[in-house]
Amino acid sequence: MTYISFPTDRKFDFAAIGRLCIDLNANEINRPMEQTMTFTKYVGGSPANIAIGMSRLGLKTAFIGKIADDQMGRFIEGYLQDKGIDTENVITDKTGAVTGLAFTEIKSPTECSILMYRDNVADLKLSPLEVNEELIAASKMLLISGTALAASPSREAVFLAVDYARKHGTVVAFDIDYRPYTWKSAEETATYYNLAAEKSDIIIGTREEFDSMERFENNPKRIDRYTADKWLNHSASIVIIKHGKEGSIAYTKDGSEHRAKSYPAKVIKTFGAGDSYAAGFLYGVFSGWTIEKSMEYGSAAACIVISSHSCSDAMPTVAQVEGYIERCERGEITAG
Amino acid sequence: MTYISFPTDRKFDFAAIGRLCIDLNANEINRPMEQTMTFTKYVGGSPANIAIGMSRLGLKTAFIGKIADDQMGRFIEGYLQDKGIDTENVITDKTGAVTGLAFTEIKSPTECSILMYRDNVADLKLSPLEVNEELIAASKMLLISGTALAASPSREAVFLAVDYARKHGTVVAFDIDYRPYTWKSAEETATYYNLAAEKSDIIIGTREEFDSMERFENNPKRIDRYTADKWLNHSASIVIIKHGKEGSIAYTKDGSEHRAKSYPAKVIKTFGAGDSYAAGFLYGVFSGWTIEKSMEYGSAAACIVISSHSCSDAMPTVAQVEGYIERCERGEITAG
Amino acid sequence: MTYISFPTDRKFDFAAIGRLCIDLNANEINRPMEQTMTFTKYVGGSPANIAIGMSRLGLKTAFIGKIADDQMGRFIEGYLQDKGIDTENVITDKTGAVTGLAFTEIKSPTECSILMYRDNVADLKLSPLEVNEELIAASKMLLISGTALAASPSREAVFLAVDYARKHGTVVAFDIDYRPYTWKSAEETATYYNLAAEKSDIIIGTREEFDSMERFENNPKRIDRYTADKWLNHSASIVIIKHGKEGSIAYTKDGSEHRAKSYPAKVIKTFGAGDSYAAGFLYGVFSGWTIEKSMEYGSAAACIVISSHSCSDAMPTVAQVEGYIERCERGEITAG
Amino acid sequence: MTYISFPTDRKFDFAAIGRLCIDLNANEINRPMEQTMTFTKYVGGSPANIAIGMSRLGLKTAFIGKIADDQMGRFIEGYLQDKGIDTENVITDKTGAVTGLAFTEIKSPTECSILMYRDNVADLKLSPLEVNEELIAASKMLLISGTALAASPSREAVFLAVDYARKHGTVVAFDIDYRPYTWKSAEETATYYNLAAEKSDIIIGTREEFDSMERFENNPKRIDRYTADKWLNHSASIVIIKHGKEGSIAYTKDGSEHRAKSYPAKVIKTFGAGDSYAAGFLYGVFSGWTIEKSMEYGSAAACIVISSHSCSDAMPTVAQVEGYIERCERGEITAG
Repeated sequence: MTYISFPTDRKFDFAAIGRLCIDLNANEINRPMEQTMTFTKYVGGSPANIAIGMSRLGLKTAFIGKIADDQMGRFIEGYLQDKGIDTENVITDKTGAVTGLAFTEIKSPTECSILMYRDNVADLKLSPLEVNEELIAASKMLLISGTALAASPSREAVFLAVDYARKHGTVVAFDIDYRPYTWKSAEETATYYNLAAEKSDIIIGTREEFDSMERFENNPKRIDRYTADKWLNHSASIVIIKHGKEGSIAYTKDGSEHRAKSYPAKVIKTFGAGDSYAAGFLYGVFSGWTIEKSMEYGSAAACIVISSHSCSDAMPTVAQVEGYIERCERGEITAG
Repeated sequence: MTYISFPTDRKFDFAAIGRLCIDLNANEINRPMEQTMTFTKYVGGSPANIAIGMSRLGLKTAFIGKIADDQMGRFIEGYLQDKGIDTENVITDKTGAVTGLAFTEIKSPTECSILMYRDNVADLKLSPLEVNEELIAASKMLLISGTALAASPSREAVFLAVDYARKHGTVVAFDIDYRPYTWKSAEETATYYNLAAEKSDIIIGTREEFDSMERFENNPKRIDRYTADKWLNHSASIVIIKHGKEGSIAYTKDGSEHRAKSYPAKVIKTFGAGDSYAAGFLYGVFSGWTIEKSMEYGSAAACIVISSHSCSDAMPTVAQVEGYIERCERGEITAG
Repeated sequence: MTYISFPTDRKFDFAAIGRLCIDLNANEINRPMEQTMTFTKYVGGSPANIAIGMSRLGLKTAFIGKIADDQMGRFIEGYLQDKGIDTENVITDKTGAVTGLAFTEIKSPTECSILMYRDNVADLKLSPLEVNEELIAASKMLLISGTALAASPSREAVFLAVDYARKHGTVVAFDIDYRPYTWKSAEETATYYNLAAEKSDIIIGTREEFDSMERFENNPKRIDRYTADKWLNHSASIVIIKHGKEGSIAYTKDGSEHRAKSYPAKVIKTFGAGDSYAAGFLYGVFSGWTIEKSMEYGSAAACIVISSHSCSDAMPTVAQVEGYIERCERGEITAG
Repeated sequence: MTYISFPTDRKFDFAAIGRLCIDLNANEINRPMEQTMTFTKYVGGSPANIAIGMSRLGLKTAFIGKIADDQMGRFIEGYLQDKGIDTENVITDKTGAVTGLAFTEIKSPTECSILMYRDNVADLKLSPLEVNEELIAASKMLLISGTALAASPSREAVFLAVDYARKHGTVVAFDIDYRPYTWKSAEETATYYNLAAEKSDIIIGTREEFDSMERFENNPKRIDRYTADKWLNHSASIVIIKHGKEGSIAYTKDGSEHRAKSYPAKVIKTFGAGDSYAAGFLYGVFSGWTIEKSMEYGSAAACIVISSHSCSDAMPTVAQVEGYIERCERGEITAG
């Protein structure tokens, strides 16, 4: 059964709005960051990673965002262009804002953390007047990322982008991507996450991220079905709640639940798993696959990324995902 | 025809959320404020005035707001209580915020202006956790005022109050009350006004106020019907667009338009006209009257206030409104 | 003995830099402010009051400050001009700042308090580039007021004004005027008060105000001599420490102490006592009188002000001060 | 002739107060930063570099500063301790501040630039109450760095440290280290730089840095002698004005000027030249050498640092400086 139908004849399959930043990944890993002496630079940010993933999977992709007027910003723009992503709506800040940074610490494959630089970042300076209505009208899907709701004027830019999408029949996918930095209070977070989720067709997040949206709800036992029904009763057709190793569950408009198997991986670090999962899953939705098959595809894409040093650079092509699935099915890959 | 139906068996008819402040009205008038030497203190703020008006008209009324921990705040709370308004959800700020002030200048009956003090005001410090869900569930109508959307955390408190109202079947009336102070940009204003208007049953504003909501709309000729239809296609049942002396037009869910006659008045100043109009009109809605009769009642209430020195203190009782209408019909009152 | 010698041949005797604001004095007094319904508007602010006092005493006076671009600002400028004070260096703010307000509450002659509005005030927006070096070079004395040190850029403007004064031989008088509003910490206050006091010829303050400057000093018993010596070892020639009803003590460069008798008064309120004292005392210094006689003159000027409803409006002329002293000496005035 | 005399019997020779940050130096150099993919992490910040330099030269050294409560902060503290620097007065921030960053770009040996991250940095959160008077009383010299004057409360902490130094006879050296980041205006910069310079025994800066202090001076031709005399007439005994390749000039209290020869170097980048020069020069002052010999020593130390990839890590020992000078004198090192 298909839960999402897309408009046809559009220039872009996929447009993402939100955070563009720099990951500085530890080169010497399996130790505390204090002992890491060199770092490698990558493009980062959840919507950036997903957009790169979609483009790598062959979809026509565009980005709506804002970059600093410095070497880091120019590197980001150049990288997106290299990956075939349209950057006409990537605006250069002129206020002296900086590029957000994320230094990664990999103490072990399961002990990963991030040191964020999010003060005065360019991505949160995107203003409503800089959002290109035509671009959204020319896209089949708009992906919004929760981090872009964390501050004004980026928050207003996202709400306007969503209104444009609904006006033009563009499917709205919402990746919650909750990061406590920048938000002033748990109540502020819940308020704007809810206003965005009400207008979204697809919502993807971890159980903890959905918790952050239920600050004013009466769901103390954190029941997934309660959570999903709230949004399915608004605009959503698909709600995916991720439970880490225990797997993800997709709830759909028809009242059914969907689970999919996951694949083994030789994990280097956990960063990027969610972004590659989202890219793989949405690729399945675009392809008209079942929810289960889409989820499996997302899972395989995630395995590839967490077996690599980077996030954006490791986003797989169709051939890579299919190769990974085949090797798993032949028993050539085991967890480690 | 009735466009609004109210829940029954509720403790309060009417609850308002938002601005509570102090008006300092010039005693020596018909001159520039530079030459005014003494000022009289009144409770002010659009939702405060409307709540006082509703209570004076005999409705069971409550207020949800925040006051400074000083003499001005205590005066406001005492005054509301004197007028029979429930103040259990009027919270006292503990951060050192001040009471908003509005000095009025009356150069002539038609040249009135206001000098506002809105920095660090207590009313904008109301937080979502301070909004009492039970109070809203126990009210037939919730009035929200646009000024309370101007800053965080008051903005989030209003969105939560609206969600509580919709959850409990409480009618939401939205008085746009646009004041440029505090807002950071025209785009910010339009974004949050739209998000609130989408969830409102009744929306009341001047043509200029509706313009401020259409920053991203394609309505360059400022067509009322275009404006009204947008909200009637969302949740609204009644949209009133006010055109000053040329009168107001009410648009209703069934596609019809309603106009009402207005009354003459010996105008002292124009302040408070909108608030008393809103109180009179909503009283009519509560009474199950036609839209036209409700609008006339609002018009008469407005005439009484603009013929007086104060706003809040001049809010009329039913007997006063009816007396005014009778005297107009007998030709005893003429414009002046 | 004369402790201060003035340059000669200067256009102005006295220039003050700092706060210009509005006092809103309760008309109905001897009650809490909650019960006061009307307020009368006066020019206020410690350096404004002192400048008005000096002008009333016949000295050629100028003001260096910043006013809001509104009715309150224009009232202040007009009032100063009416009193003969040069306002060429009174700048009008163009950033939307407001005029500081002080609502006075007079519960009884000895229970007086002030409700201040000091957010985003114009007087603290005075910038160094707006300070007129020629005006300071053309004045015999520059009075600086501690409140102007509370925030940038006014703080920098004061430091520059002091440097101009020292460069041109203009005597620097420092009225500590400590008000906790605006200051971010006790340490910030002490730091900048000390930097200003180091460069001042005359320092006047209450014991509590000097305490606020000794945050990093080792003077736990609050010994006046310890306090005075610190500044006399820097640039000061006269340090006056006020002890309320117990009288004031002047410490001078030669190591001596000076006390003066005080006069009785029928007190209405205590506001303005310090400002009128400063004006009277400095008038004596200008006149070449002894420290004792100058202090008595300040005391008489203060008595006149605290027997009146206003501060600025009640600043006395020479004839009024002399008349008051004579009546006291004839026993015609007693405390009450 | 000796211009500076030091107190004896002190636990520390040298204490520095101010910025502690992280340099991220491009590994792939001689290209724009966009093309640099990996960066190496070093401790940075002008006073940190000078303190490391002093410790490497064998002086007993302490640091007064504030670090972020994260991996970067802990790395800094550990590095200082490894270099033998006392860190008892290095405080860990608890407000969520971050470590300042400086990404270096080396397009060519003469085209170097820095991309700074200075929002919400821990080093500017040092408060006056965190400055240890005993430590300053136990040091022969206190070095203050201009960057620490850029914001409150660090600014107040520096002024207090200087007052402690003067109270206890500790020599004050002021490294202007002007960086436009953080400062709100040129007037603010000039005001606080002047207040610090007035109380300093030794002042070191480039001609451009001294210009930034002369915002309100009448020195349009930027005459060094005018500049130097201003500070020599306050507290300074030595003022060094650096003119890049044209060499530096030292002005001393006795009215004389001092110039010294410089050494050749195979330059990799220009960063760190000033810090190593300061360390070498001050080492000479501590050693009782002539101004000329001290300047030469500073010049040799600078040559060693600009021939290396890092700043802090390259700070030389006495043996390294002497070796460098000998090799220069033997003609073994030529510019390149």
